[in-house]
Amino acid sequence: MLLPNINHPKQLKNLTVDQLNDLAGEIRRFLIEKLSVTGGHLAPNLGVVELTLALHYCFDSPQDKLIFDVGHQAYVHKILTGRMDKFDTLRKKNGLCGFVKRSESEHDVWEAGHSSTSLSAAMGMAMARDLKGEDNRVIALIGDGALTGGMAFEALNHIGHEKKKLMVVLNDNEMSIAPNVGAMHNYLSKIRSDRTYLRAKDEVEMLLKKIPAIGGKLAKTAEKMKDSLKFAMVPGRLFEELGFTYLGPVDGHDVGKLIDTFNQADNVEGPVLVHVVTTKGKGYSPAESDSHKWHGITPYKIESGKVLKAVGNPMYTEIFGQTLVELGEQDERIVAVTPAMPGGSGLIPFGKTFPERMIDVGIAEQHAATLCAALAMEGMKPVFAVYSTFMQRAYDQIVHDICRHNANVMFAIDRAGFVGADGETHQGVYDIAFMRHIPNIVLMMPKDENELRHMMKTALDYDDGPIAYRYPRIHGRGVELDKELVPIPIGSWETVRAGEGYAILAVGPMVQLAEEAAELLKREGLSVQVVNARFLKPLDETMLKELAASGTSMLVLEEASQAGSLGSAVLEFFAEQELFDTVVSLMGIEDRFIEHGSIPEQREEVGLTLEQVCNRIRSFKTSRASTLGKRSLMS
Amino acid sequence: MLLPNINHPKQLKNLTVDQLNDLAGEIRRFLIEKLSVTGGHLAPNLGVVELTLALHYCFDSPQDKLIFDVGHQAYVHKILTGRMDKFDTLRKKNGLCGFVKRSESEHDVWEAGHSSTSLSAAMGMAMARDLKGEDNRVIALIGDGALTGGMAFEALNHIGHEKKKLMVVLNDNEMSIAPNVGAMHNYLSKIRSDRTYLRAKDEVEMLLKKIPAIGGKLAKTAEKMKDSLKFAMVPGRLFEELGFTYLGPVDGHDVGKLIDTFNQADNVEGPVLVHVVTTKGKGYSPAESDSHKWHGITPYKIESGKVLKAVGNPMYTEIFGQTLVELGEQDERIVAVTPAMPGGSGLIPFGKTFPERMIDVGIAEQHAATLCAALAMEGMKPVFAVYSTFMQRAYDQIVHDICRHNANVMFAIDRAGFVGADGETHQGVYDIAFMRHIPNIVLMMPKDENELRHMMKTALDYDDGPIAYRYPRIHGRGVELDKELVPIPIGSWETVRAGEGYAILAVGPMVQLAEEAAELLKREGLSVQVVNARFLKPLDETMLKELAASGTSMLVLEEASQAGSLGSAVLEFFAEQELFDTVVSLMGIEDRFIEHGSIPEQREEVGLTLEQVCNRIRSFKTSRASTLGKRSLMS
Repeated sequence: MLLPNINHPKQLKNLTVDQLNDLAGEIRRFLIEKLSVTGGHLAPNLGVVELTLALHYCFDSPQDKLIFDVGHQAYVHKILTGRMDKFDTLRKKNGLCGFVKRSESEHDVWEAGHSSTSLSAAMGMAMARDLKGEDNRVIALIGDGALTGGMAFEALNHIGHEKKKLMVVLNDNEMSIAPNVGAMHNYLSKIRSDRTYLRAKDEVEMLLKKIPAIGGKLAKTAEKMKDSLKFAMVPGRLFEELGFTYLGPVDGHDVGKLIDTFNQADNVEGPVLVHVVTTKGKGYSPAESDSHKWHGITPYKIESGKVLKAVGNPMYTEIFGQTLVELGEQDERIVAVTPAMPGGSGLIPFGKTFPERMIDVGIAEQHAATLCAALAMEGMKPVFAVYSTFMQRAYDQIVHDICRHNANVMFAIDRAGFVGADGETHQGVYDIAFMRHIPNIVLMMPKDENELRHMMKTALDYDDGPIAYRYPRIHGRGVELDKELVPIPIGSWETVRAGEGYAILAVGPMVQLAEEAAELLKREGLSVQVVNARFLKPLDETMLKELAASGTSMLVLEEASQAGSLGSAVLEFFAEQELFDTVVSLMGIEDRFIEHGSIPEQREEVGLTLEQVCNRIRSFKTSRASTLGKRSLMS
Repeated sequence: MLLPNINHPKQLKNLTVDQLNDLAGEIRRFLIEKLSVTGGHLAPNLGVVELTLALHYCFDSPQDKLIFDVGHQAYVHKILTGRMDKFDTLRKKNGLCGFVKRSESEHDVWEAGHSSTSLSAAMGMAMARDLKGEDNRVIALIGDGALTGGMAFEALNHIGHEKKKLMVVLNDNEMSIAPNVGAMHNYLSKIRSDRTYLRAKDEVEMLLKKIPAIGGKLAKTAEKMKDSLKFAMVPGRLFEELGFTYLGPVDGHDVGKLIDTFNQADNVEGPVLVHVVTTKGKGYSPAESDSHKWHGITPYKIESGKVLKAVGNPMYTEIFGQTLVELGEQDERIVAVTPAMPGGSGLIPFGKTFPERMIDVGIAEQHAATLCAALAMEGMKPVFAVYSTFMQRAYDQIVHDICRHNANVMFAIDRAGFVGADGETHQGVYDIAFMRHIPNIVLMMPKDENELRHMMKTALDYDDGPIAYRYPRIHGRGVELDKELVPIPIGSWETVRAGEGYAILAVGPMVQLAEEAAELLKREGLSVQVVNARFLKPLDETMLKELAASGTSMLVLEEASQAGSLGSAVLEFFAEQELFDTVVSLMGIEDRFIEHGSIPEQREEVGLTLEQVCNRIRSFKTSRASTLGKRSLMS
């Protein structure tokens, strides 16, 4: 066993290629075993075992900067940099982060949960290095999926122009989370599959010699042709045109070849792109045969590859997916648009039923949003199905292309609120705050999965501009699902529990928490109204005015950034109405990033708990008593 | 004269190429004359006269969808579609919009002020067309600058894969607003300058015949080589690799050739890219020789090309640019990063003084932001100089890469607030609302240009994370500039005028308005404190508590979206502090998009005027009287 003795990547340098291969086997067994208990990103990490070994063998971390695009494929890197003993705590609260994490190790130089950032990061580090007169290497490891993200191209365009020394390692496994789409993918496939490329270089030289010397008016073209020929026959032209030296494709599971290629790349002046072909899930047959399913996986039985399914009601995502098929049958204008998340977004059933109306654009949130605007302007009813955190990428397109055009785009915002184990890079807690101030948009969140279905119908029937429904990454409440879908009046809230003197205006899953709190407080003699504040925009102004008029003390309860979300919308409304004597308290997420853990742990961490909600209402009692005292003095 | 009789593009179809050339001349004279009075985007439009004529000649707008990327090069299109008589009102309130505008004409099918959206729009329209079973053409006109924006690549990647019939016309003038940078630019330059390309096609065929037949083990490679050769020798390989048919380069001022090429392109199956080379400013020598200056121009003398400069104090942008040079001399860690706006952002002096520390990444806001994060993490002090409206593109990178890493990035947010003639696509009114809820960031806005300088020093000295200063697109107040720059304590507001009972918490240029209002109200016996609320985040909590404790009625006054900006931050603070009896009123920008006009007109339109501010304070008087009445009853 080599693995137990490795706690710094420099120790790899003494190993032979055979030993590195042995080590690769040990690492695979370690990952398969550990993740069978904790779950995690198994397939991506099995794919990069040799690649990570070769990188650490050839280069000197942390002096050399090793940048992982979307840090979920850094498990092997974590193992090699002294964190092997922490894998039992993977993705758990206070445990090992599932992504690269600077606070964990000096070898973690760049954190990312969103894709396509590594090239920009590498360029910044290379520019800083050169400005400081240092000479470390900078290496970005990026997947072929992430390469389709627009910002990766922006970076390629900049890097290819500036000619800084910098290495891009393209980990080409034909997959991101879903099978890749797009012209870049087709291009890479062509390189991979065309065996001519692999042996062309020497042969091209020989052939060139066979072309007779040509004079006269064609001489110049002939010369140009000879020059172009090598270029034409070897792969990676596209990258060469963009200013990179291209090396590859190289087998990503052949440590020896990887080491040779990285050493060769290290001698290149300027930017170099090494095209590495890997197999996602390599070495564990269940993961190899369905790398999509095994991208991020819950605990499983190693021998059978059988996944231990979490029990519970259907997830909101699943209800969304089923309902979209129902609606798609009724209305052929519906088109689903996903940025590379057909599975995660629950769109597989829709895609199977209506393949021509299912659009996977690859990792390309900006394009997805603007595409939706144009589809809507031409009479379609596009559903932009996107995780809250990834929608951040499309903020400008939502403002400039969707809302300014007042286009009838429907947003299905999944993973709104805490997301659990993915942690701080993935929390869906800002979308209310970054959407609410955009003119023309309607924003909803349902109290349960049945209401989600009605909201989807509401959105479909709404023809006055963009409309969004957001829903959490949790199981539904298990409520009965109405067969007939009825649109909800825009801007109408719902009192789910009557009360007097106190009201909780709750959003989404917080409605349940509010109901529980109201039930508990009833025993203390407090009568708390619970309002399902299902429209974040527009507000139910009538209800708010009534609450104000009745002197009700209000608590706005939401699993979202307290700054700028529903709470501040309510406060703004009362300020605008000059209702200065209303009592409104806010409970949301404080002004900091919340790390990985379970969703209940994350709620606990920020005080979105039964106890805290009850305490907040109890504290009203005191202030209310004093206010009432004043009022009685005055009357 | 042909021009006066043209009011629909179909009328072009009866003209000969000679007549089209005559018409081009008339259009140029029209533009040069009209814009000498109104100002506007002269050089871009002079560059596309023949191109626009040829497009309207070949295709049938509005059935065929003509999509302009960044609609400021649509003046010729506006002339040809019946809006010639409105050019006297160009970019004025209620006048002709400087961009494509759907409400103006059925020929305007897509609005854009931000770049790089046209390919996504075209794809959406092409997909909708096919789903609806229609057969109109979709044509996107995009500049080489806009092509570097990441979302354009995302769209190329999708289009090249899906193979929809769709035409991309690449208007290659080697410029966007500034001279273009980037590998794509280098690539296009190579195509343009390499004359071999232009005559290669036929000659390659001849040369291929001269290569002897090759057998044996090299046969397959030889065959492959012959296949590849044509491809290698003709231009546009990069686009061909991405799934497009490439046609060009074609002279963009030769109407006949353009018509031939567009007809040829129209016969291509699937996506086609026509590479058109144009000269920005064509036909007006001052604009041709300095197309950067003449991109967007103020009124000028036609004969001399002399620009009538607006008189006034230096613009904030200019003060920023000068001060950055001063700071750059003191601190060599400072690096300026601009997404293709070196001139507009006032960075020319910095770039001249410190060329190695001046980074123009092209139109690539996402990459720019993440690049800054990495530069900062490696010890540099990057300044991300960006217009408020374009920063919208980098929202996710600000959250995920800059603020989550707590990187020491400085933001210089220009054009914050109303922007005047550019109108609704460019208003810088959302950045407070979309930045304020992001953890770790400090947000400032100065009351005058002198304070801007101190804020720049504040940002430089600040080492605890990201920090931003935003400033308006207006002239400074003409105040004296302090030589010595002194950091301002983070989170400290400033009382610029004492008062009692009433306070205006004003942001940026609104401080001056507040002072004027206070002066006016003084004559009515109202004593109004004016606070320069120069930190949007963090707030001056001490001052807010004092104001609350003294029972002061507060008005938050800001030229920003009322939803989610400083006003709501103040309300949230008081809610959090359970100071429920504070009186806080908000004046900001209501929840709608504000169209083009002058900045004073835009302020007038939303009520950010002296009169309205005074009225709001006066209205406090009434409510205050009643409150005081209540209090006296109680005591």
